[in-house]
Amino acid sequence: MKFVGARKLAPHEDDDVLLLDTTLRDGEQAPGVSLTPEEKADVARALDRAEVDVVEAGSACTGAGERETVRRVAELGLDATVTSFARGVKGDVDLALDCGVDGVHVVVPASDRHVETKVGTTRDDVVETTTELVEYARDHGLWVEVIGEDGSRADADFLDRVARATHDAGADRFCYADTVGHASPEEVAESVARLTEFGPTSVHTHDDLGFAMANVHAGLTNGADMVHATVNGVGERAGNVALEEVAVALDHCYGVETAKLDELYDLASLVAQVTGVPLPPNKAVVGENAFAHESGIHTDGTLKDDRMYEPYPPERVGRERRLVLGKHAGRAGVRAALAEHDVDADEEELAAVVERVKALGERGKRVTDADLLAVAEEVQGRERERRIELVDLTAASGGGTPTASVRLLVDDEERVASGTGSGPVDAAVSAVRSALGPKATASLDSYHVDAITGGTDAVVTVEVEMSRDDRTVTVARSHSDITRASVEAMVDALDRLLVQGESRVPADD
Amino acid sequence: MKFVGARKLAPHEDDDVLLLDTTLRDGEQAPGVSLTPEEKADVARALDRAEVDVVEAGSACTGAGERETVRRVAELGLDATVTSFARGVKGDVDLALDCGVDGVHVVVPASDRHVETKVGTTRDDVVETTTELVEYARDHGLWVEVIGEDGSRADADFLDRVARATHDAGADRFCYADTVGHASPEEVAESVARLTEFGPTSVHTHDDLGFAMANVHAGLTNGADMVHATVNGVGERAGNVALEEVAVALDHCYGVETAKLDELYDLASLVAQVTGVPLPPNKAVVGENAFAHESGIHTDGTLKDDRMYEPYPPERVGRERRLVLGKHAGRAGVRAALAEHDVDADEEELAAVVERVKALGERGKRVTDADLLAVAEEVQGRERERRIELVDLTAASGGGTPTASVRLLVDDEERVASGTGSGPVDAAVSAVRSALGPKATASLDSYHVDAITGGTDAVVTVEVEMSRDDRTVTVARSHSDITRASVEAMVDALDRLLVQGESRVPADD
Repeated sequence: MKFVGARKLAPHEDDDVLLLDTTLRDGEQAPGVSLTPEEKADVARALDRAEVDVVEAGSACTGAGERETVRRVAELGLDATVTSFARGVKGDVDLALDCGVDGVHVVVPASDRHVETKVGTTRDDVVETTTELVEYARDHGLWVEVIGEDGSRADADFLDRVARATHDAGADRFCYADTVGHASPEEVAESVARLTEFGPTSVHTHDDLGFAMANVHAGLTNGADMVHATVNGVGERAGNVALEEVAVALDHCYGVETAKLDELYDLASLVAQVTGVPLPPNKAVVGENAFAHESGIHTDGTLKDDRMYEPYPPERVGRERRLVLGKHAGRAGVRAALAEHDVDADEEELAAVVERVKALGERGKRVTDADLLAVAEEVQGRERERRIELVDLTAASGGGTPTASVRLLVDDEERVASGTGSGPVDAAVSAVRSALGPKATASLDSYHVDAITGGTDAVVTVEVEMSRDDRTVTVARSHSDITRASVEAMVDALDRLLVQGESRVPADD
Repeated sequence: MKFVGARKLAPHEDDDVLLLDTTLRDGEQAPGVSLTPEEKADVARALDRAEVDVVEAGSACTGAGERETVRRVAELGLDATVTSFARGVKGDVDLALDCGVDGVHVVVPASDRHVETKVGTTRDDVVETTTELVEYARDHGLWVEVIGEDGSRADADFLDRVARATHDAGADRFCYADTVGHASPEEVAESVARLTEFGPTSVHTHDDLGFAMANVHAGLTNGADMVHATVNGVGERAGNVALEEVAVALDHCYGVETAKLDELYDLASLVAQVTGVPLPPNKAVVGENAFAHESGIHTDGTLKDDRMYEPYPPERVGRERRLVLGKHAGRAGVRAALAEHDVDADEEELAAVVERVKALGERGKRVTDADLLAVAEEVQGRERERRIELVDLTAASGGGTPTASVRLLVDDEERVASGTGSGPVDAAVSAVRSALGPKATASLDSYHVDAITGGTDAVVTVEVEMSRDDRTVTVARSHSDITRASVEAMVDALDRLLVQGESRVPADD
């Protein structure tokens, strides 16, 4: 890719699909999403690491705060071309120029609904404005794309007219925008095939009908060569086409490289964190379960051959495979999970463990490490005395300093301790740690509470992952008292981690 | 649709696309998902209300519990054809028959990876088994579909051979299965076009590449006439194609009816609830934001013309439009939101309110009703004395009976009350209600806490929606102490709801 002054993006090369990320503009327009300038800069840097071609940093016309952010991204020195959204008015282009971006997306109304009702103008005026603005932006050294808003509901002849004017005026490309997620793949194919006759064409798709990817596919197979996408598909309404899906699908199916795939998971995680929109477990490429296998048939198959139930190895997108136990558990998966905790079981025991694991799963329960180990002990008749037991817990919170006390039985010795924290759970956890003393520490690698809906008396499920030396254990506990559930989960995890440790938990120094 | 003995599903009619739901089988194989028999029955009934053609109730070979569930669904007297999954062994068909289903999906390995490594058989044996099982199932009065597992990675000639054997033996249909979500739309198109020469063909797609819908589209445009889908796209790994997207897209783009659209949202909500897999906000058709508009341009456009930024009206799928305030707020949206709370503002005031709402949004804050009203009061210099103020809060929990006390200032009168509950939040809420007395009640319509990740000291955001008479107000509060955040949100909401109520909050009777 060559760089020309402020216009970083060289004309596309043959057989190459360019990837434009609009997470920072269209993505941030999603209801409830708002990124700070620092967060936007972090996302922009992560996009650059993923080698995305164009980063639309925002919309300079939105306000002073937004301009500061766009300027900030423009000054990061990214390899990517940095652009700003601009409505079809000269002032917006000036504001974008003022932010030091490499290029602009000039958005003009394309459907009559947008031309007449929204903007209150005429088709002729739109064409005239488009020509003027493209020339103005080009004269000021910008890379220019014109987006025909609501193009998928536009009159075909008028859309062609705008695209022709766009290219005649010297713009770099025209974008076919399915702004409201209305188009069928056939409509996209037909429109894009026409539009590419006038010059380079991008596609901007939304997922209102679930056709965001199908429409990208229709666009690319009909001559478009740039895709507008957002990380995790965040965006207005049902969101935009997901960048990670476009990148992985084009690589997997067509050998077309558009981004550095092993950066995608970190990028997705960052965007989930800063937008507050969590990754759905069943999200392609980046969801928690995208490479997880629970059912017996799938787990067994995967243990025989990694690729049995995966289209490509998770490592390609910076991830790892997970085998999960639940109601569809089978022998192979359970055997593998027990082996991870150094538990051997003969065939008869294994069958009994599988039965009980399935029964737990059938009761709608997540089967954690602790559950599996408890089942195995019962089946094998191994007596195991708990090393740590929770005898009593009190937490006070609401005002002042959240405070908690615990009474634990540690190797049959009673230990009482108190602690403070930022809330009742935090205080209780601190009390537990204090009761155990510095020699029985374990790290709390993850603390997760599912979203609570329904009412203040809802049962809350807390899942913790704790590790000590090279052992890791997961425990889940449910209770209508979040403090109780959290402490029970943590105490059970600690008990499991200490079981193969020193003979006695040393008292505090 | 005609009904033939146990084989409810009549041969498909011309130009009709049939919808098979596999939420209860493939969907339930998603890691961590497990439905009780009662929940499966509820989902099956909801699918029937949505007029889905086929309900795959489960996999009779999984175990006794699962068989009980499949039998339960079969006995519901649904209009839909009820089926069971069966591996390619006679015993599985017998188990399905024993459950009283209308039909079976006989799953046989299609790719060499599955034929040889997974099942450990040969291509010839697969063909022979297929023929035998289809004849056996037909002889026992079942509707029969053969699924060629991993068909998208199978040798084309062998897949054809299995499909031909399937139809020769009298099966109702053959299913092209992209089991691992590997296929491109071109591959699906080519395979399905071939397979439909032998007889009726279904498509079963997964979303590992984001191509689940594109591949359904490719299948249907090449002669397939049945789609396998799951509600919300739950399923193995990245999940299956989403039933609601298939139904809405086929209706919107092609006028093809496959389901009762206005039942889809209730169905999706039910499945989200019983699977514990929440609806992603940006999920097409059923996500919280699918019909929400925040940005100024979109809100303004939508207020001018409902359809400005929507492909179809939300009511079509049993939903409502939502206008949301945030960093991209504009005058039209803010004016409309103020009007909902009977607040008038002149142009200058409105501009000031918009500026402050945007500033709140830019700080990453959700702008709730309470925030908007507070901003308006400040801008308009309206003195408003709080009716209810939280002076003190104490909550004790962990063991025994969670207990809380509150000290409120209600119309400058101090009121102290205590309460118990199922956890500290529930106890505190009960104390607040008790302090206010029965004449100042309001209903807590929704209580929501975002999923907590990161650590026990994470800041928790609690959002409540409360209503009184015909007024509704939303408030969000964040605090590292979940009890504090919950009570602050609730007290603020009550304060807002009482502001236009009686002149004094009456003391307890």
